[in-house]
Amino acid sequence: MKARVTVMLKEGVLDPQGEAIRQALGSLGFDGVTGARQGKVIELDVAPGTDEAQIGEMCEKLLANTVIESYRIEVL
Amino acid sequence: MKARVTVMLKEGVLDPQGEAIRQALGSLGFDGVTGARQGKVIELDVAPGTDEAQIGEMCEKLLANTVIESYRIEVL
Repeated sequence: MKARVTVMLKEGVLDPQGEAIRQALGSLGFDGVTGARQGKVIELDVAPGTDEAQIGEMCEKLLANTVIESYRIEVL
Repeated sequence: MKARVTVMLKEGVLDPQGEAIRQALGSLGFDGVTGARQGKVIELDVAPGTDEAQIGEMCEKLLANTVIESYRIEVL
């Protein structure tokens, strides 16, 4: 069974990596890009029957820094 | 208009970061996790009317290293 966790910086938290991407795209001629934010995605192979609550616990304990990051779980 | 680009290492490319996550989850007691792979996600604010082909060009030129990474585009 697969699950995907997406971790993004919360709104309002400065994202220098995203800003660097926006500027680099602009200098490559992609002027239509007005904003970019970068996060991480983690694809997990989990035991059948693992529920979202357990994956949420993994996020709280390891995968995300919940002070500055939010996470989203998709069970595939 | 928003678009999301997900960049993952291709199958077969060693992913030490994902492996570190798997081991760390195991040592936290999450024994059901048999594999983990980490990638990045980039959320772009693009001009209305930007099509997938243009975003694909951004991936080819900047966002992904297509030798070792694959990308997926979602227009939101």
